Amino acid sequence: MKPVTDFKEEAIKKHKELRGKVAVELKDIPDSRDKLSIYYTPGVAAVSDRIAKHPEEARDYTWLGNSVAVISDGSAVLGLGNIGPQASLPVMEGKCMLFKHFANIDAVPIVLNVHSADEIVAAVKAIAPSFGGINLEDIAAPICFEVEDRLAQELSIPVMHDDQHGTAIVVLAGLINAAKLVGKQLNDCKIVISGAGAAGAATAKLLHKYAKPRMFVVDSKGIISPDRKDLNNEKRQLLRYTNLSGVEGSLDDIIKGADIFIGVSRPKLLTVDMVRSMDKDPIIFAMANPIPEIMPDEAKAAGAAIIATGRSDFPNQVNNALAFPGIFRGALDHNIRQITDEHKIAAAEAIASLVTDPSVDKIIPGLDDERLVPSIAKVIE
Amino acid sequence: MKPVTDFKEEAIKKHKELRGKVAVELKDIPDSRDKLSIYYTPGVAAVSDRIAKHPEEARDYTWLGNSVAVISDGSAVLGLGNIGPQASLPVMEGKCMLFKHFANIDAVPIVLNVHSADEIVAAVKAIAPSFGGINLEDIAAPICFEVEDRLAQELSIPVMHDDQHGTAIVVLAGLINAAKLVGKQLNDCKIVISGAGAAGAATAKLLHKYAKPRMFVVDSKGIISPDRKDLNNEKRQLLRYTNLSGVEGSLDDIIKGADIFIGVSRPKLLTVDMVRSMDKDPIIFAMANPIPEIMPDEAKAAGAAIIATGRSDFPNQVNNALAFPGIFRGALDHNIRQITDEHKIAAAEAIASLVTDPSVDKIIPGLDDERLVPSIAKVIE
Repeated sequence: MKPVTDFKEEAIKKHKELRGKVAVELKDIPDSRDKLSIYYTPGVAAVSDRIAKHPEEARDYTWLGNSVAVISDGSAVLGLGNIGPQASLPVMEGKCMLFKHFANIDAVPIVLNVHSADEIVAAVKAIAPSFGGINLEDIAAPICFEVEDRLAQELSIPVMHDDQHGTAIVVLAGLINAAKLVGKQLNDCKIVISGAGAAGAATAKLLHKYAKPRMFVVDSKGIISPDRKDLNNEKRQLLRYTNLSGVEGSLDDIIKGADIFIGVSRPKLLTVDMVRSMDKDPIIFAMANPIPEIMPDEAKAAGAAIIATGRSDFPNQVNNALAFPGIFRGALDHNIRQITDEHKIAAAEAIASLVTDPSVDKIIPGLDDERLVPSIAKVIE
Repeated sequence: MKPVTDFKEEAIKKHKELRGKVAVELKDIPDSRDKLSIYYTPGVAAVSDRIAKHPEEARDYTWLGNSVAVISDGSAVLGLGNIGPQASLPVMEGKCMLFKHFANIDAVPIVLNVHSADEIVAAVKAIAPSFGGINLEDIAAPICFEVEDRLAQELSIPVMHDDQHGTAIVVLAGLINAAKLVGKQLNDCKIVISGAGAAGAATAKLLHKYAKPRMFVVDSKGIISPDRKDLNNEKRQLLRYTNLSGVEGSLDDIIKGADIFIGVSRPKLLTVDMVRSMDKDPIIFAMANPIPEIMPDEAKAAGAAIIATGRSDFPNQVNNALAFPGIFRGALDHNIRQITDEHKIAAAEAIASLVTDPSVDKIIPGLDDERLVPSIAKVIE
């Protein structure tokens, strides 16, 4: 398998050759005057008139039942940070590619030239009648939280910020099987999450909802604790279900005796000594990309029972693409208006259940598992 | 040929069967781990990074060089009026179908849940980095004028409100050949335009730019004249190049002695007596849809030399689809930032020139003329 750095040149070459990755396809070719009259004027007026009179039928006569907007302002793109809307377009086209390939969903890349929560919410609400669902992507924390909350409340179509919930769902799926393998109960575990951005916060929230484990979140300043004066509102919210004992300190301190480490933070943050200080059979999800918080071989040498990363060239790849295609497939097919915590947990359980015989090198299914989308879609209802 | 009313049932049936008309297509299928790494993470990061450093190359690596948003707020849809965004979606999908079929442009239907000029401009500007061009559609006058003007000024991609300029361009193309046929010069003609909405205003403006004929615009209250107190700003602007003599009155009055009637107004507005009162060999463009200002047989019986309508079941169909695919094809291919009056005139001349031997039943090419898009695209540079 190639080292990940090798894909750079090929990526540049293929993107230039194809001039992007997505295009528009017609469901029928209007190659006769009659077809033009059926699909455009005058025939189409009858269809518009019908929807005007029966708005609930819009999904039956348009692409609304199968379309999703992949929306970003380009403020938190992969490892690149705030590169702006147009530079983020290749990533959004890529996401649309995954939507189509894995779930046959017609996804359109929309990159926004506005960056405040108010402006993003206004722009997305303005274009929302064009789509059956909204996938928010690569929007920086903490704005992403407010944007998603408001849109989910104010729109009647499903809205999901994938950086938050896609990661949280796949992490939960992996932890369900990992805990089983080492003979622990998640609700008995001490879990340390490194990273309090979109993915870290959503993972903490979903794990709390699922199992109420003892949890601690660590950011670049240390453990998120009640005495800290530098916490924004979103980090303060985390204290409702993490660090209930109110301890202060660093990752170095809090990792001692932990059963599970979840890294959505920075390369090489987790040292061999830290892994050694964890409880018996530690579970390590080191998902910084492309360089994880600790390399799998180091973690194993230090005693890790199970290690997962975000990379495709190691076992146990935690990849959002395991979750979001099935979630939106189900949401569109069942005309779901909101993706709830219960949906997310059901999706995680569906993903976990596809690994019938978990092993340390196989706690989550591969992206090529064709049961993924139908299994998840079935429970998003 | 079928009467136009017959397409209603078939339109409902086909739209329901296909669930809309457009879908997303992938330029390559990501069916291997390597392809996923090239098109998505980690490879795509190199592409985004490159665009961040060289913004001018965005068109080379994304769909920007071939994509257009077809945008409406659903406030002035066909003959249906203000039916709102979602009911207008079938029309916008239809427009996207024409873009793809005639010009191989990837057009995406975007319907807006906002209706003031400020809100529409803000929404379109917010999403503009996602597309290579903006086709505004079915937005009510007078808001459409302000929206187009501001977007054209503030964005660096081509913006065109097709209801205005598509119609104006094809009317001019038709008039070029019609005038030749009856042996008149357009700059010597008296032209009466019935309808002061988007299409009427743009037609007056383009005809003035092209030939400075003697023109009068009539709305439902009568001739647009300096003494009228009920004129909005846009109608007042028309007085800069129409009705320079400042006459008042009705269509009935002003049609006397006219060489050309251009109707973008209401069914059956033009009577046989009015046609009889026109100059020798009157030219009638009666484009109200589906029922024109006067039926072709009546107009001919009353002495019309040439008659054009908006309908496909009569000769000389004035159809915007003759113009907009080629205009956007040229604008995208030549990376044009603004579609100017000179472009519109060049497009009209290109369309007119395709009819090498004009006759009363053939002053404009048919939609099936494959020379249209390349001929127009060539002059939009």
